Amino acid sequence: MNQPLSPDPTLRHRSHEVTLRLLRPDGTAYADTDVVVEQTRHAFAFGNVGFDFIGLANGDTAESPGAVFGGADAETAERLVDLWLAVFNTATLPFYWSGFEPVRGEPETERLLTAARWFRDRGVSLKGHPLAWHTLSPAWLLDAPAEEVEQVLRARIRREVTAFDGLVDTWDAINELVIMPVFDNEDRQNAITRLCRRLGRIPMARLAFEEARAAGPGVRLVLNDFNMSTAYECLIEGVLEAGIRVDAIGLQSHMHQGYWGEERTLEILDRFARFGLPLHLSETTLLSGDLMPAEIEDLNDHQVPSWPSTPEGEARQADELVRHYRTLLSHPSVEAITYWGLTDLGSWLGAPAGLVRADGTPKPAYDALHRLVKDEWWLGPTRLRTDAEGRMKVRGWAGDYRVDIEDSTAAFELGPDTSRTGVTVTP
Amino acid sequence: MNQPLSPDPTLRHRSHEVTLRLLRPDGTAYADTDVVVEQTRHAFAFGNVGFDFIGLANGDTAESPGAVFGGADAETAERLVDLWLAVFNTATLPFYWSGFEPVRGEPETERLLTAARWFRDRGVSLKGHPLAWHTLSPAWLLDAPAEEVEQVLRARIRREVTAFDGLVDTWDAINELVIMPVFDNEDRQNAITRLCRRLGRIPMARLAFEEARAAGPGVRLVLNDFNMSTAYECLIEGVLEAGIRVDAIGLQSHMHQGYWGEERTLEILDRFARFGLPLHLSETTLLSGDLMPAEIEDLNDHQVPSWPSTPEGEARQADELVRHYRTLLSHPSVEAITYWGLTDLGSWLGAPAGLVRADGTPKPAYDALHRLVKDEWWLGPTRLRTDAEGRMKVRGWAGDYRVDIEDSTAAFELGPDTSRTGVTVTP
Repeated sequence: MNQPLSPDPTLRHRSHEVTLRLLRPDGTAYADTDVVVEQTRHAFAFGNVGFDFIGLANGDTAESPGAVFGGADAETAERLVDLWLAVFNTATLPFYWSGFEPVRGEPETERLLTAARWFRDRGVSLKGHPLAWHTLSPAWLLDAPAEEVEQVLRARIRREVTAFDGLVDTWDAINELVIMPVFDNEDRQNAITRLCRRLGRIPMARLAFEEARAAGPGVRLVLNDFNMSTAYECLIEGVLEAGIRVDAIGLQSHMHQGYWGEERTLEILDRFARFGLPLHLSETTLLSGDLMPAEIEDLNDHQVPSWPSTPEGEARQADELVRHYRTLLSHPSVEAITYWGLTDLGSWLGAPAGLVRADGTPKPAYDALHRLVKDEWWLGPTRLRTDAEGRMKVRGWAGDYRVDIEDSTAAFELGPDTSRTGVTVTP
Repeated sequence: MNQPLSPDPTLRHRSHEVTLRLLRPDGTAYADTDVVVEQTRHAFAFGNVGFDFIGLANGDTAESPGAVFGGADAETAERLVDLWLAVFNTATLPFYWSGFEPVRGEPETERLLTAARWFRDRGVSLKGHPLAWHTLSPAWLLDAPAEEVEQVLRARIRREVTAFDGLVDTWDAINELVIMPVFDNEDRQNAITRLCRRLGRIPMARLAFEEARAAGPGVRLVLNDFNMSTAYECLIEGVLEAGIRVDAIGLQSHMHQGYWGEERTLEILDRFARFGLPLHLSETTLLSGDLMPAEIEDLNDHQVPSWPSTPEGEARQADELVRHYRTLLSHPSVEAITYWGLTDLGSWLGAPAGLVRADGTPKPAYDALHRLVKDEWWLGPTRLRTDAEGRMKVRGWAGDYRVDIEDSTAAFELGPDTSRTGVTVTP
């Protein structure tokens, strides 16, 4: 394992420089010409759940039956679209098995494909969540013998990865594996827990990763958990030592019981960065109301009739969100942050975890995040001038850019692999 | 993994039956003869630390320099010998690296060999503790580069296992691996933590087990930890999936903060029995005085000027000790219990964890344990009679037995593999 990488609060590692040479189609240089450069997309994955827009994408008028959390109705969703697209570039789609395939053999593939295309048409990358998980496993699997459970799970993983090939490029291959074989929050033990207890955690991870990898050799596969303790570290070590190829480590980071703070966040990042894999902060929430009591172990156990967003809570949420995103981006291993929910409407547990109030108005946290992602960490339209040979230097955040020259437009990228010696752009 | 084994409070799985046939040296049967059968040794490892007797075995008159915990002076030790041997059949010897090799290249091999022979001459089996551990690693290793630390650690493991071949048949190959790479209770990070952080936990386990196995193909190698959480489970899964051969899982079970109780004990045993390996309760303590506050995480942090054994505490300790040993023996996976210390004199942290008071008198817990081990779970001298063909049936606890016939004596064993169809005994 590598030594922990030190975080850099200047975020220097997030920006890059390139020298462009701008040429006309006939090969002559745009010498001594004014141009405007602007960023069009972040390479960093600023994600959110896409659950709210499945109904909208499918032309529903009632609530989307496929959504489990989130699930704004189509009319509300329409008003949320602009807010969502103005900040986020990556959507997590719900493949919770019991909701995705409520009747055996009748998966909601078409509905989710329509949603995936809707996002892709708007320039949004897609992540599928999750392929293997004990919670929300289908009721029709409860009584199946172990061999059948394994076979059906393998088939379901292949089916989803295959069907969404070219649309969903990142999957949570397996979710919450630390607790999976000992999960006991149910009247009847679910079939996935039963299978995991029988096989063991590492063979269960192998099953999920190998099936997904075989079905989609090009997709990125994430091992995702809410457990930030040594147990998850030990599990990751075991999975990697067993030769299972993991593309990224997912850290859920729901903070219903309070903001972790910079010190704990960096400590966690350092512990999990040791494996040399990218870190995805996969399910980030900060509340704009009362916090959940610290003694609650399973967040699902906290049920309150009303959980309002408050002015003080909203100010705190905005402050903590900015601090948290700054801390996460300061660590070079972090390549994705998914905020878990845009609106309070239909949020998990009814918590005021959204960035937008139930009435559709943005909270201060939304504005603060927008300011970070599209202002402070963003290269807006910037006037530059080429030299006598059509050259100019551009420095900016990793991502996609456009350059406007006279009546033409060209695109280029900035990233760690971008050549610094010269890129020829033909608008 | 196997399903958890159910505990059996009748301890039926601990006793066995055999039909013996008793023959004279000339081959004629002891027909219709009165005999006396009695148990001489338990197969189950009732262990304790042997630290107190190293000085005595070596003929010291002052305190033993090699001992770290325990360490009664030779005069006191002499009075403790009979108490120790009357209950225990397995001694843990201290191979704490900083004490065993305080000066590089000058290990206390001879001193420990003398102690090991002293125990073996008294019918006691030996366990070495531990081969690889971050705590009490030698100061002279602090500044060594990683490659050297690994090389020296490998050499030390080979050296100890080789030198004690035929005497020490069980080793804690590696101790407290869960916390090893993140242990930070020191002013300067010790060399073993540094190495483990660099290699990872599983390669560190492989190093310790493979070196020990190569040096002593016949010894039993234990993975030992105080961590009873999911983290240790995940680590064990990773170690086993990586193909490292582990002979037993060690569970330290210091209970300075209070008796676990039957329910928690069985829950822990079931979780760790899943791997199908024998369980060693390797460092069992129950206090006969104040308990350590629950909020203390590292027991070493609790320092009090005086920690007396009290009458109420001694009654509680005796009650809990009997309940704990009954619970442990009820679980078929448990094959060893080591109580951690005989006397309060020089006990770890000064806690009243011994079975004998500092003045050398036995506490009620000692008497209670003696009653279990040498009365309730023991076949004392028992008159039996052979049939016309010299046959008789014996049922008893797994272990070694002797049979007295007329003026002769013979030995036999009872165990799960003992033939039930007939054993011929020639006194």
